[in-house]
Amino acid sequence: MKVGVLTGGGDCPGLNAVIRAVVRKGEQEYGCGFVGFKDGWRGAVEGRTVPLDIPAVRGILPRGGTILGSSRTNPFKTENGVRDIKENLAKYEVDALIAIGGEDTLGVAARLHAEYGIPCVGVPKTIDNDLSATDYTFGFDTAVGIATEAIDRLHTTAESHMRVLVVEVMGRHAGWIALHSGLAGGANVILIPEQRFDVDQVCAWVTSRFKASYAPIVVVAEGAMPKDGDMVLKDGTKDSFGHVRLSGVGEWLAKEIEARTGKEARTTVLGHIQRGGTPSAFDRWLATRFGLHAIDAVHDRDFGKMVALKGTDIVRVPIADATAKLKTVDPALYKEVGVFFG
Amino acid sequence: MKVGVLTGGGDCPGLNAVIRAVVRKGEQEYGCGFVGFKDGWRGAVEGRTVPLDIPAVRGILPRGGTILGSSRTNPFKTENGVRDIKENLAKYEVDALIAIGGEDTLGVAARLHAEYGIPCVGVPKTIDNDLSATDYTFGFDTAVGIATEAIDRLHTTAESHMRVLVVEVMGRHAGWIALHSGLAGGANVILIPEQRFDVDQVCAWVTSRFKASYAPIVVVAEGAMPKDGDMVLKDGTKDSFGHVRLSGVGEWLAKEIEARTGKEARTTVLGHIQRGGTPSAFDRWLATRFGLHAIDAVHDRDFGKMVALKGTDIVRVPIADATAKLKTVDPALYKEVGVFFG
Amino acid sequence: MKVGVLTGGGDCPGLNAVIRAVVRKGEQEYGCGFVGFKDGWRGAVEGRTVPLDIPAVRGILPRGGTILGSSRTNPFKTENGVRDIKENLAKYEVDALIAIGGEDTLGVAARLHAEYGIPCVGVPKTIDNDLSATDYTFGFDTAVGIATEAIDRLHTTAESHMRVLVVEVMGRHAGWIALHSGLAGGANVILIPEQRFDVDQVCAWVTSRFKASYAPIVVVAEGAMPKDGDMVLKDGTKDSFGHVRLSGVGEWLAKEIEARTGKEARTTVLGHIQRGGTPSAFDRWLATRFGLHAIDAVHDRDFGKMVALKGTDIVRVPIADATAKLKTVDPALYKEVGVFFG
Amino acid sequence: MKVGVLTGGGDCPGLNAVIRAVVRKGEQEYGCGFVGFKDGWRGAVEGRTVPLDIPAVRGILPRGGTILGSSRTNPFKTENGVRDIKENLAKYEVDALIAIGGEDTLGVAARLHAEYGIPCVGVPKTIDNDLSATDYTFGFDTAVGIATEAIDRLHTTAESHMRVLVVEVMGRHAGWIALHSGLAGGANVILIPEQRFDVDQVCAWVTSRFKASYAPIVVVAEGAMPKDGDMVLKDGTKDSFGHVRLSGVGEWLAKEIEARTGKEARTTVLGHIQRGGTPSAFDRWLATRFGLHAIDAVHDRDFGKMVALKGTDIVRVPIADATAKLKTVDPALYKEVGVFFG
Repeated sequence: MKVGVLTGGGDCPGLNAVIRAVVRKGEQEYGCGFVGFKDGWRGAVEGRTVPLDIPAVRGILPRGGTILGSSRTNPFKTENGVRDIKENLAKYEVDALIAIGGEDTLGVAARLHAEYGIPCVGVPKTIDNDLSATDYTFGFDTAVGIATEAIDRLHTTAESHMRVLVVEVMGRHAGWIALHSGLAGGANVILIPEQRFDVDQVCAWVTSRFKASYAPIVVVAEGAMPKDGDMVLKDGTKDSFGHVRLSGVGEWLAKEIEARTGKEARTTVLGHIQRGGTPSAFDRWLATRFGLHAIDAVHDRDFGKMVALKGTDIVRVPIADATAKLKTVDPALYKEVGVFFG
Repeated sequence: MKVGVLTGGGDCPGLNAVIRAVVRKGEQEYGCGFVGFKDGWRGAVEGRTVPLDIPAVRGILPRGGTILGSSRTNPFKTENGVRDIKENLAKYEVDALIAIGGEDTLGVAARLHAEYGIPCVGVPKTIDNDLSATDYTFGFDTAVGIATEAIDRLHTTAESHMRVLVVEVMGRHAGWIALHSGLAGGANVILIPEQRFDVDQVCAWVTSRFKASYAPIVVVAEGAMPKDGDMVLKDGTKDSFGHVRLSGVGEWLAKEIEARTGKEARTTVLGHIQRGGTPSAFDRWLATRFGLHAIDAVHDRDFGKMVALKGTDIVRVPIADATAKLKTVDPALYKEVGVFFG
Repeated sequence: MKVGVLTGGGDCPGLNAVIRAVVRKGEQEYGCGFVGFKDGWRGAVEGRTVPLDIPAVRGILPRGGTILGSSRTNPFKTENGVRDIKENLAKYEVDALIAIGGEDTLGVAARLHAEYGIPCVGVPKTIDNDLSATDYTFGFDTAVGIATEAIDRLHTTAESHMRVLVVEVMGRHAGWIALHSGLAGGANVILIPEQRFDVDQVCAWVTSRFKASYAPIVVVAEGAMPKDGDMVLKDGTKDSFGHVRLSGVGEWLAKEIEARTGKEARTTVLGHIQRGGTPSAFDRWLATRFGLHAIDAVHDRDFGKMVALKGTDIVRVPIADATAKLKTVDPALYKEVGVFFG
Repeated sequence: MKVGVLTGGGDCPGLNAVIRAVVRKGEQEYGCGFVGFKDGWRGAVEGRTVPLDIPAVRGILPRGGTILGSSRTNPFKTENGVRDIKENLAKYEVDALIAIGGEDTLGVAARLHAEYGIPCVGVPKTIDNDLSATDYTFGFDTAVGIATEAIDRLHTTAESHMRVLVVEVMGRHAGWIALHSGLAGGANVILIPEQRFDVDQVCAWVTSRFKASYAPIVVVAEGAMPKDGDMVLKDGTKDSFGHVRLSGVGEWLAKEIEARTGKEARTTVLGHIQRGGTPSAFDRWLATRFGLHAIDAVHDRDFGKMVALKGTDIVRVPIADATAKLKTVDPALYKEVGVFFG
């Protein structure tokens, strides 16, 4: 059996761990051969490949990024994209395709399987943790760990000076990274895209925090939005949900807090460091098990499925289940965590 | 309502996070007062307490250890232990008791509730992850992370020299830390207490690894045991399971490998560094949520229960469920991971 | 002998290590008593103190921040500031004063000693490493380590995507953090305040880097400035050197690179995480030795001096030597490092 | 000019950073070609080489180990070793040789230059920091950082339980790692090879520490030795200094402390994790600058020299200066640090 593998979308620690597990088990247990498609769906469309066997995956477990490269190419939006993929799968004699990616990449895999009968297995990937049908995705734990360590460091400044510290973390449509890192880091305010925030409420928490102990730390997801009246839009543009998004919400919020409370505020924008570097042990474990189970699904010819985490088990679900609906933060959970605000 | 809190058994990152969450929510939302019993059940027996309120728990979230201290005292093995506890609960006007601990500590709580009607809520704690009825316990992720980082570091030595590197990690009766850190660290052999190992098989993996790439890394749980014929017992003593345990299995195994393969071998014994220091973000999240739900259970007067993780939810289970049976590594999971051996 | 201690200026990992060493040796070896002045010179002016003895400094070695608090108060710019300090030193029977701080704090100490005969000993502190008369200051190694780790993480994104990654690090007037972290992190361009940069040269490096291997990483000190013609000033304000400073140079540069090269660019602004958290082992060693030698200088009544690092030795130099002139990056050193650009 | 490069002796973080800097500057600025000799002097004797140019050194800066491999082969103890080296240098048309290593490797380079006129330049390397003529060697800061982090973690266990924690760190003949990490980690006892220790004194410190605050942490260098009367030798063997060395001093000491004080004691043996993994920013800076200056020395045909750190400068010294005498801990420095014992 010859298996194609590709990784799509944004960088995410654990991609290499998946690839390694797929190849290691596939070659060793099932006698599979492999073709790596370069830069996600683009490589499948353009027929660009990289050799993939056990020697090629040695030593990649702890490395961030992906040895296959990635892109955001969507074959359904590329002229003759699907036709070219089919031709390339035939040319390289690929019997099955493992697509590792997020909403977009998996959405393509689901359609290729459903509409064109291409034998696909999906592996969910997003540092944002916003895919349905799986408890967690790999990369998320690493991102939360990096953000938490940054927040930890800010506490000493907050203790020694009287400054509000605003940390902007990733999360355009879902606040998981903000919620987990904010709780783990002992932040005093956590703002997520799922709930528009009230700047006056934020300022009230900031003020009460100064009275109770020392300077507050505010964690804000990049996609968090103030209530309409609070905001003078400067460079907001409509996002894919039709919302006007605020660019640089962290910087904007710091200025608002300074203006409304009279306290100095400073911003940290973690940016891409949240999605780079070596994966955490949790993510390596999860990514490796996803890889082992993905090649099992291929071996079982159980196509159109995606591997997913349920408790401590890896299960298979229809790919379409993962992409049907964004997994956002439940209001009840946000309320649970809110006991630490202020 | 006045709530007693105690922590028992071995050190575990996340204990302080539980205490903080219990006190923060209890005082703020439910108007509870608190009494901290010093050094686990010993403090409850001897009536030694520490003050516990919101100011007392400020800043403890990222700190390892426990501000309440700990011990292995078992009131059922202490003269008049239970009687003294009852007197002290009355004396301090304690309406409910939150016991944070492992098998022993929770076992006491279960009996105090079942046999004496003492209103107890349990919070599971063990870095070994060997408690039933919960997907994970806090402290485990931190321990796995520390061991994985150590294994990562050994790879560069393994690549540059031709030495077998043996790492002894915690795990007397369950191999979870060895399994997770060994997989995440890319170890070539993982030995766990659940399955007696064959030294010749280990040596065969070691030898084949040298041929395939570079020097092998062997992760061995402290409770792992060779098959009977393999071992000349020097200072083994019978453990609580009636097994003869090998003291210093890592050092012993390194010597056997040297003798049988002719390759140099070196040992690292991580010891207590696995259970100290700041908890990982995952463990802070889990411990905090356990704390929030434990005080909810107290508020609901739902005694005899323990909080537990099921998927991404915190649920309540009878305390006795957790202590009924050690949660050991499933042979199927060990086999799944075994694809990376050798 | 009664010794006053204060910490001034910005947060810096290692401050607590100095305080602990001063108190531990002073009390134990020389029988000194201590008074901590709260929030730098402000506490000395206002007579606000904190108790300081061996129990008070237990456990603070690994903690960032300062148990004494800090401020930027300058008694020479405060009405009756010097008179109030003299009165408070008399009131608290202080025989000598240890001032731990940067250019401003030490400048005050130098004048108080020279002009008013107040017996001061200085300990140099700045994460920017821009104080003359000492090889290094504590805090700098920690800041460089944090920035380097961030750059390390960005490499995996740079490898997997085709994006320019700009990292803005601390350094208003001196480029030491940018230079050390940029070199240690394998950055492809390093921009420092000491030399105005040419945006076209930066873009040329960026472009050549894309051809040679993968996406480039640009490290820019917050105080770095483009050549005059390159810049359209938006919110620049004159700094203390009379220069117009660019606010948000990282964000600005990313936009320029996008506009001129057509490549996507992303920015990370590390901000205060560089000056928080636990000090590195190097900084703890240096800060502790500074503390031990500072109390020795007090014991020797060798006032008006500052402890300094020369090679592996701690020496004493006139405080004024440290503040006479900013220690900036030598052009020869910048050129040496430049071999890695592009 | 064609330059041979080799790395000898034990693993040390920073070796790859040196190699990268040598090749990058040599090829780019001086037009040099390179030959890498595999596994230290062994490769030079046996004529085994690896290709070495700018693409070969991309991405190796943050990696521990050495891409050239290493060994402890001494050509002067190998039959026809020197003759073979001369032949291989001629065969590969090598004009100069850069030897990166410790006492043994550099000793060979010094003799090859002095006795056979082979044009050698040395780069000092030892995690033990025991080479004379340089303030520090790269790898040492990384090792100290790893040991310090381990000690940090043990504090929480020491605070929560009443156990003596013994940490054995590297250092056969010099106590630098023990001294720096012990001080930085806040250990209560530090034992080094330079001064035989008195077990009763250690026990007295342990006992007084328990009284003053919480459980003590004892850092012991692997080469530390008790006074003669204290020791019952079990498996000691004479080392190269003619001393009987105690194998497993950490474990031995823990048992003695238990026997003499009645307190439980636990041991951690860090072993090879101290010499693996990514180098610290400090070590990358130092190693890179060593590499840049080593190729400068080759370009200047300044042979028989070694690069060395003096303050913040890189200087050249005769190779023989580095190997003449082991750099051990000065008794005055040990005394300075001793203020924290007990």
